[in-house]
Amino acid sequence: MSEAAPSDPSDPNRALLERLSLDSQGLVPAVVQDASSHQVLMVAWMDPEALRRTLVSRRATYWSRSRQTYWVKGETSGHTQHVREVRLDCDGDTVLLVVDQLGPACHTGALTCFDEGSLLGDVGPDG
Amino acid sequence: MSEAAPSDPSDPNRALLERLSLDSQGLVPAVVQDASSHQVLMVAWMDPEALRRTLVSRRATYWSRSRQTYWVKGETSGHTQHVREVRLDCDGDTVLLVVDQLGPACHTGALTCFDEGSLLGDVGPDG
Repeated sequence: MSEAAPSDPSDPNRALLERLSLDSQGLVPAVVQDASSHQVLMVAWMDPEALRRTLVSRRATYWSRSRQTYWVKGETSGHTQHVREVRLDCDGDTVLLVVDQLGPACHTGALTCFDEGSLLGDVGPDG
Repeated sequence: MSEAAPSDPSDPNRALLERLSLDSQGLVPAVVQDASSHQVLMVAWMDPEALRRTLVSRRATYWSRSRQTYWVKGETSGHTQHVREVRLDCDGDTVLLVVDQLGPACHTGALTCFDEGSLLGDVGPDG
């Protein structure tokens, strides 16, 4: 996380980057939602520089906690995410990306990272 | 996070609780999505006991990192979440809850915690 450029006062993204409330590792979770299906596709992690790169390029860019490096979604698989919207939550510690997902979002080949792991069935309020 | 009951081999939730991959604080982020509107409402945090309580009661229950205690969504505000579905992601380190949200989800009174903080407008793939 040492690649961040010095804060540029003329950067239009500066104000929003300053609203980020980072965790003890300097990160926020990024929830990724499909613009068309509205499915929650995945959750990844961002530091301010990953968010800045995402805002500038509109290609979803994350920080890998395991590999300690930036990664552009789809750079290897081709399953890129074009970012339509970026939203901060009320206390600035979570980011929501609304994306156009090309191909499956999950590295397993599933459409979303949540396709395999249902713990409770879909039941109504009385069920 | 000391209130967890001893692991009960007959607990039907045991297998899924064992699939959880916790962060250094023993937590996973929980993404909360509205069952009807499909909006992403908020992100909160769970330890295994918060997830167990949620699965048993179907009332969304989280771990507060700032207050270091469990909280049931809506216990004070009345804006409860009835949990329809709980899904683990592919590597077990994120939970997706699909809920029936009563009233606004955000403590600010907004329908979602992401209503105020748009950083990019909604634009198509060509910008």
